[in-house]
Amino acid sequence: MEQVLESGSVRALGKSARLAARALARADTAAKNRALEAMAGQIRSGSKQILAANGIDLAQARKQGCDAAFIDRLTLTPALVEQMAQGVEQVAGLPDPVGAISERVRRPSGIEVAKMRVPIGVIAIIYESRPNVTADAAALCVKSGNACILRGGSEALESNRAIAECVRAGLKLAGLPQAAVQLLASADRAAVGELITMTEYVDILVPRGGKELIERLARESRIPMIKHLDGVCHVYIDDSADPEMAVRIADNAKTQRYGTCNTMETLLVAQGIAPRVLPEIGRVFRDKQVEMRGDDATRSLVPGIRQATEDDYYTEWLAPVVSIRVVKGLDEAIEHIAKYGSQHTDAIVAGDAARAERFLREVDSSSVMWNASTRFADGYEYGLGAEIGISTDRLHVRGPVGLEGLTTQKYVVLGHGEIRT
Amino acid sequence: MEQVLESGSVRALGKSARLAARALARADTAAKNRALEAMAGQIRSGSKQILAANGIDLAQARKQGCDAAFIDRLTLTPALVEQMAQGVEQVAGLPDPVGAISERVRRPSGIEVAKMRVPIGVIAIIYESRPNVTADAAALCVKSGNACILRGGSEALESNRAIAECVRAGLKLAGLPQAAVQLLASADRAAVGELITMTEYVDILVPRGGKELIERLARESRIPMIKHLDGVCHVYIDDSADPEMAVRIADNAKTQRYGTCNTMETLLVAQGIAPRVLPEIGRVFRDKQVEMRGDDATRSLVPGIRQATEDDYYTEWLAPVVSIRVVKGLDEAIEHIAKYGSQHTDAIVAGDAARAERFLREVDSSSVMWNASTRFADGYEYGLGAEIGISTDRLHVRGPVGLEGLTTQKYVVLGHGEIRT
Repeated sequence: MEQVLESGSVRALGKSARLAARALARADTAAKNRALEAMAGQIRSGSKQILAANGIDLAQARKQGCDAAFIDRLTLTPALVEQMAQGVEQVAGLPDPVGAISERVRRPSGIEVAKMRVPIGVIAIIYESRPNVTADAAALCVKSGNACILRGGSEALESNRAIAECVRAGLKLAGLPQAAVQLLASADRAAVGELITMTEYVDILVPRGGKELIERLARESRIPMIKHLDGVCHVYIDDSADPEMAVRIADNAKTQRYGTCNTMETLLVAQGIAPRVLPEIGRVFRDKQVEMRGDDATRSLVPGIRQATEDDYYTEWLAPVVSIRVVKGLDEAIEHIAKYGSQHTDAIVAGDAARAERFLREVDSSSVMWNASTRFADGYEYGLGAEIGISTDRLHVRGPVGLEGLTTQKYVVLGHGEIRT
Repeated sequence: MEQVLESGSVRALGKSARLAARALARADTAAKNRALEAMAGQIRSGSKQILAANGIDLAQARKQGCDAAFIDRLTLTPALVEQMAQGVEQVAGLPDPVGAISERVRRPSGIEVAKMRVPIGVIAIIYESRPNVTADAAALCVKSGNACILRGGSEALESNRAIAECVRAGLKLAGLPQAAVQLLASADRAAVGELITMTEYVDILVPRGGKELIERLARESRIPMIKHLDGVCHVYIDDSADPEMAVRIADNAKTQRYGTCNTMETLLVAQGIAPRVLPEIGRVFRDKQVEMRGDDATRSLVPGIRQATEDDYYTEWLAPVVSIRVVKGLDEAIEHIAKYGSQHTDAIVAGDAARAERFLREVDSSSVMWNASTRFADGYEYGLGAEIGISTDRLHVRGPVGLEGLTTQKYVVLGHGEIRT
């Protein structure tokens, strides 16, 4: 393995990734699927080595006094290794976006113009503790015809190394270049600095981790990024909503899981319907021990809850806490979301189609929903098959990013000898 | 007009553009077209003022000793002002990409998932001398629902101011916010520095100008860019080509216009067909006084021409000069293009469909062509109606960029009360 321990050779790694990317872009679907199947096989047969390597990382993490949640994310089990292998096989089963031709038109000059979907090139993925990302990300990149450079957290170094070994063995078995998946296995911060500024070798950066990581990369990198910042998601209950549906969606959007980016953080309720839904929502949240913070109108309907501050409405709780506000109606809801939201996922519950359409059109978020829980904003739920993350950027993809998000399009012109006059 | 003469208020300008962008994103097609028609009307009725302002710029440029080509690009005439107005009207006639719904699918959970095309937001356009860009760029941004901040060359300041005045008067007549089109009318370099780093107010940067400008922006900006760097375009003549077609395309790709980015700069010829096409191509280029620079094999077929250097193959001539090389066949042609090309536009002339398909798939350029002249790589020829430029980036658009390239997509979810389980 071309593991790199000095930042000086990060460029060499980039160069070989660039070469491998060309080979992978040329590879047909069958070859890429063979590689994915072989990768899954190698992960299964290498399970012992992966778990042993994980043991070394875990011992080190415990020695350093890492907390239980951290240890939990880092821990691999035989079942998790099997899941990893199955994940790679699932990617093999997904349709290959590369080579798809669309928007084909014949022009007055006689030429036919179309778009062809092509890989992006070299993708650098920078992630934190969970070692399964090594297999997941590599599989998505291989299937979409991209080379990747993986940089996992230093605390998972041995686990990532063992998994990457299996991935690369799989590539080799399928006759694809091993340099298509490379692990930047340096503990050196400068190596990351080099990686995120090598514009000639890295086409796109996918950070998966905490806000601090992402803000650092956004500040220091010169490479386009598919990134995920905040998920301050809203549910707005319109006057025209079915009250029972409104309660069900507000409940699910907040309480189905607390720590996910598509969880509702703020509930907006139109004043006309507030007396009919807020007391019931208050009961549901109280039963589930969700702390509510509301404005005066909310507090008059749900007594005993805390006053919401201005800051609360900007907050991504990621916890059993919810901000609530009573608004005049649709316009004020849209204004609130524009001001306090993070352009992630926002939903309206409404019976009135015209109002729902205005919400869908005017709320500028990566996912906008009508009569559905924000928790659906997810690559699997949307049918992408797998996702590398959810983009809160506007370019080049928004929302859940699957295989297609890891590709771009080029123009293809089919002529018959036409020249321009 | 909120013209800004101190860099300190560039942010204020960004803030008002951001607000205007929301209004423009909400505007329907009829309102945007009314604004475009009104803009065209204002340009026509303001022709005298525009020409007078242009006269001031021209006098200044002559005083500063600018060269004839520069003066030519800067000069407006009544006919050019009329063309500008017509250009704006043509944009009114183009289909509106905003709001289009695609890829609608029903998922097993019951929700329907689709993508909706939406404006990008605020676009900053930085351009050099030609004042017509002020009207063209504003029209494309308004039609695609984006606010824009225009920063023209300081030598065209008075012309740009007069044109922007008409554009903004048109917006006002149609009831759209004037802040949707703003001119950064400061001669201060620091103002541009501020503009290209205001990530919260500017979503995308479109530089239109020389390489020096674009490299400066790429270095200093933190904002995604639609940019155009080099156009080192190739035509490869395969063994299987029709010789007559090969000569016609090579001739047209090089000589139809010398100074454009999609002009052929290097001709690659398979060795099997070289004796049948190169002597004739040599005659054509000699007749048109195109300087040829070739490798040894080329020089043995076209005697008397200069030896091509390694550097020549990297060169975008933009002039009556062409580099020529004889290659073994398709593989060597693809390798050459990968090494020396600029991923702009490359064409194969071939009768063999399998080889053409390999070329189309494996050459990684924004436009790849089969049996057509590279000169077709153009928004009008592709049917985009108008273009803001040709992107040599991979993200978020490649090749000619029209209205659709100035938009992005968001996910829209239509539910019936579904919650996630």
